[in-house]
Amino acid sequence: MQRSIATVSLSGTLPEKLEAIAAAGFDGVEIFENDLLYYDGSPREIRQMCADLGIVITLFQPFRDFEGCRRDRLARNLDRAEHKFDLMQELGTDLVLVCSNASADSTGEHSILRDDLTLLAERAGRRSLRIGYEALAWGRHVNTWQQVWNLVREIDHPSLGVLLDSFHTLSLKGDPTAIADIPGDKIFFVQMADAPLLAMDVLEWSRHFRCFPGQGEFDLAGFLAPIIKSGYTGPLSLEVFNDGFRAAPTRANAADGFRSLLYLEEKTRERLEQAATSVDILFETPVASEYDGIEFLEFAVDESLGAKLSQWLQRLGFVNAGQHRSKNVSLLRQGDINLILNCEPYSFAHNFFEAHGPSLCATAIRVKDSTKALERAVAYKGQPYRGLVGPNELELAAVRAPDGSLIYLVDDRDGLYDTDFYLQSEASGEGGLLRIDHMAMALPADSLDSWVLFYKSLLDFEADDEVVLPDPYGLVKSRALRSRCSSIRLPLNISENRNTAISHALSSYRGSGVHHIAFDCADIFAQVSRAKEAGVPLLDIPLNYYDDLAARFDFDDQFLSELAYYNVLYDRDAQGGELFHVYTEPFEGRFFFEIIQRKNGYSGYGAANVAVRLAAMAKSRSGAVRQAKL
Amino acid sequence: MQRSIATVSLSGTLPEKLEAIAAAGFDGVEIFENDLLYYDGSPREIRQMCADLGIVITLFQPFRDFEGCRRDRLARNLDRAEHKFDLMQELGTDLVLVCSNASADSTGEHSILRDDLTLLAERAGRRSLRIGYEALAWGRHVNTWQQVWNLVREIDHPSLGVLLDSFHTLSLKGDPTAIADIPGDKIFFVQMADAPLLAMDVLEWSRHFRCFPGQGEFDLAGFLAPIIKSGYTGPLSLEVFNDGFRAAPTRANAADGFRSLLYLEEKTRERLEQAATSVDILFETPVASEYDGIEFLEFAVDESLGAKLSQWLQRLGFVNAGQHRSKNVSLLRQGDINLILNCEPYSFAHNFFEAHGPSLCATAIRVKDSTKALERAVAYKGQPYRGLVGPNELELAAVRAPDGSLIYLVDDRDGLYDTDFYLQSEASGEGGLLRIDHMAMALPADSLDSWVLFYKSLLDFEADDEVVLPDPYGLVKSRALRSRCSSIRLPLNISENRNTAISHALSSYRGSGVHHIAFDCADIFAQVSRAKEAGVPLLDIPLNYYDDLAARFDFDDQFLSELAYYNVLYDRDAQGGELFHVYTEPFEGRFFFEIIQRKNGYSGYGAANVAVRLAAMAKSRSGAVRQAKL
Repeated sequence: MQRSIATVSLSGTLPEKLEAIAAAGFDGVEIFENDLLYYDGSPREIRQMCADLGIVITLFQPFRDFEGCRRDRLARNLDRAEHKFDLMQELGTDLVLVCSNASADSTGEHSILRDDLTLLAERAGRRSLRIGYEALAWGRHVNTWQQVWNLVREIDHPSLGVLLDSFHTLSLKGDPTAIADIPGDKIFFVQMADAPLLAMDVLEWSRHFRCFPGQGEFDLAGFLAPIIKSGYTGPLSLEVFNDGFRAAPTRANAADGFRSLLYLEEKTRERLEQAATSVDILFETPVASEYDGIEFLEFAVDESLGAKLSQWLQRLGFVNAGQHRSKNVSLLRQGDINLILNCEPYSFAHNFFEAHGPSLCATAIRVKDSTKALERAVAYKGQPYRGLVGPNELELAAVRAPDGSLIYLVDDRDGLYDTDFYLQSEASGEGGLLRIDHMAMALPADSLDSWVLFYKSLLDFEADDEVVLPDPYGLVKSRALRSRCSSIRLPLNISENRNTAISHALSSYRGSGVHHIAFDCADIFAQVSRAKEAGVPLLDIPLNYYDDLAARFDFDDQFLSELAYYNVLYDRDAQGGELFHVYTEPFEGRFFFEIIQRKNGYSGYGAANVAVRLAAMAKSRSGAVRQAKL
Repeated sequence: MQRSIATVSLSGTLPEKLEAIAAAGFDGVEIFENDLLYYDGSPREIRQMCADLGIVITLFQPFRDFEGCRRDRLARNLDRAEHKFDLMQELGTDLVLVCSNASADSTGEHSILRDDLTLLAERAGRRSLRIGYEALAWGRHVNTWQQVWNLVREIDHPSLGVLLDSFHTLSLKGDPTAIADIPGDKIFFVQMADAPLLAMDVLEWSRHFRCFPGQGEFDLAGFLAPIIKSGYTGPLSLEVFNDGFRAAPTRANAADGFRSLLYLEEKTRERLEQAATSVDILFETPVASEYDGIEFLEFAVDESLGAKLSQWLQRLGFVNAGQHRSKNVSLLRQGDINLILNCEPYSFAHNFFEAHGPSLCATAIRVKDSTKALERAVAYKGQPYRGLVGPNELELAAVRAPDGSLIYLVDDRDGLYDTDFYLQSEASGEGGLLRIDHMAMALPADSLDSWVLFYKSLLDFEADDEVVLPDPYGLVKSRALRSRCSSIRLPLNISENRNTAISHALSSYRGSGVHHIAFDCADIFAQVSRAKEAGVPLLDIPLNYYDDLAARFDFDDQFLSELAYYNVLYDRDAQGGELFHVYTEPFEGRFFFEIIQRKNGYSGYGAANVAVRLAAMAKSRSGAVRQAKL
């Protein structure tokens, strides 16, 4: 499809926007009128700039409050339209978005709407221009695509067509199915925006909270599918009003917009293939791989921090299982968990360490077919990575995560470790930890949408709903990603406030970074008892928390004191699933570990207990600060 | 009244909150359960901490989803209540907030609600505890104070009373008038929160957007007045859920909370005095002074920047009217405008310059009685200022603004300048600028509410509604303060995004600072023509803007080209009021000047033109950056 985006979706000056739009791969651009008004150059110059960049102007917008206006204003409004038609011809675009009248003094009388739109279509037609008529969700009298189509059909003028916007239909819970019955050539333009489901005034929602397809909660494939069925072959354009986007880095955000259209096309293709409709017009991606958990995690450290982290992990029951044949890299193992500590100078990990301090620099995930997985990632504009590979070393497919760390795609474990490492075969690591349950990331507040889209598109992950949690110094928002099989889980955490645990992690990382890693076990009390004995620094949980558990659940006193003694937190879901978990203190004030036991299919992350953990961490942090000051 | 605040209204750990609450002057505190759960100390220790700080625990909250619960849960809920009663006795408070049941499976059957609440009241009574029953706006069956009072009246138990929360009533547009008919001793507690009027889900609105009285748009005096009439003499407590407050500096925010209660009491007193009700219980403030515009503005500069700014101002038609008798301070004058440039070392201005660079360090406003005005400011916990005063120098009453700059209160102009300055009597400054129309400030995003409350309470200013405007690199929010006579106008601007004009000003000031100063004139074209000739750097406005004016208004071409030639922006309000205005480029990348002409009672600030100004400034800024790089 022809892929387009409205200038209002991006931040910056008009030239900055146009350059970013072209660089991201879009074919066209909607010129939002204000961007033109504020630009210090003529419409002809804008036209030339677009031509030089290789993008077409798909649309000029908006023209407001026209049809059904107060009768004494009609002549003036037609003059206004002619004025804008002049402008369009200078811009070199033939299509204008006319949105339904939202003013209080407009009329909804059908014959007047019909006559006004006919007049406008005739005037446009005389100049070979076209009108795309759109129903605003808050239009005074016209607010559904059905009303628009009825008028367009009745007037039946070649210069008047339907303009569809996913937001205006889906925000009002409208049904797009019958769009398939509109002749495709009567649909002049399609605008796409996603949005989180918010219970608020639709105008406010529309103006501030739209987002790119895949970042919100609308069923956009369900909206686009009937449009494709109609035979529509025009542009698919992003029109996103979002407060964050107005300040986001222009190029990176334009690239996300382009990726979101590809993702939407893939999801729509899936929907239509089930319905046996021709889908040649839509982007075709290699199908996503199947996953089977995390193969290994690699930490960037230096020698001294590497030794320290190794000691921490050994207290948690990990054993030294191998040393790299040629590099200063070691392997720690326990159960199904492989952790690599990389202190090698002149390596990717070292560069990462230099930039971010001790941190997670790579995540290896098990895929069924790494070639196809990489193909898919690259098709979605992911950046493949090939590192320095020494003799005997295995070459792994990898793609860069949004923070520059690596995601290895591993489909063959044969020789995965023994090619590179001298393995100590007797080292079994039977400390009781079984596998990596989840790995949480701390992200800059404005990058969450971008990460969600990255994992949804390149890796076909799913995203849970957002959860908002109180830290003593602000709010923390969390959104968990997971592979469809749930074998890989990745909660993403952000905070807009400066002093929260998340923001502290971010400032130490100078960017995003791993926040904590949770290991699964089969017997939480045995596991924690062992960790306690080994000297693992566990996070102290206030007794008042257990007092409240006593009020909420029917626990006997002995069980409660055991929970309290071991600092184990507890949660129960509506289906009777249970979670037991403990946290360690943070390693070097950055990431920490969690030991976790799930029972009866508990699938969350203990959100009910996050506030008490954040408060305990704030206390421990201020204790650490006090100590550091002494 | 006894003044109280809920711990949930502030950021920080429980001890940080309690210390800030005591320091702000509150008499009591509501302990929000989560703050207790997350605190690593027993309820008895909290009780002791409050006692040491001299505050009482006015309430423990909340106890949820009790009355009308599923019948199989009633026994368990009563156990839960007894558990919390134990806790309250350890805390040393006798009152618990029970909020109306919001769960989907609760019943609204009157007899069941009555019986459940009777049971709870009896259990509380046996332990000399009391239940304050509150209607949540989103309560499943009980959501008005009238329903609560009906139940309380019918049950008629000494341990059961009404708990009122302004948000829950006013968010649903409830009428508080008849609260006056409840016997005062049946109202156990009153919670106050203000909020902006938002069209959104009431639960979300309540949990994230409440604010302190005077910062929002509720008629809180109208809510409190009938409560006072009822004879209620208990605590007045702030319960504010606000995302920003969760991260705000604890002590400063607690101080704002206290100030907001005083302000509310004053406004309620005014309301009640009209109604001839006894109001002894409410805070009594000296009435606000009358105002008569801005007397002078004082800039903190050094010698070289002072000379430069003086040159700028002279181009704008100001004349050097005087030199300070003992200090390196000069006076520039034009029309009714007095500007002081202060380069004196070892002065308040110099310290201000060291901290903020070239900036506005003082604003003198004309008041009727400076002694009373200062008394009022001090009663509202304003910080009075007395500076170094040399021989012959006039002493002026002053109070510190939230950013540390000074607000002089001037009631006597006799000798105001000739005591301190060698005046050049012939210097008349007839350049055409008449007076200071308004002075806009750039503020850190999270300080807007605090500034609004400062001006409303200390100076009795009014605040206009918030306006949101697009800068090319993010959104800018503006809220204008004005004296009741409108002779002093002060738009406050914030931006949450890093690259907007506002944020650039803030980072150059390292804090808040003046953003622009607008001067009134009688003939915009003559004025701008004179400025152009004198070499004032005016901000270039794109021609596309004037093209759009042509489409919107019925201007003849000559008038339009005149507007465009002089870079004059135009706005017209619904009543036919007209605004003509031009902007200068910023002085040292910080503040700029505006020349303005209002016609036919135009009372706004040209919001319709702010976006084009912001875009032009962004362009000029990036031009300046390019130049600096060359």
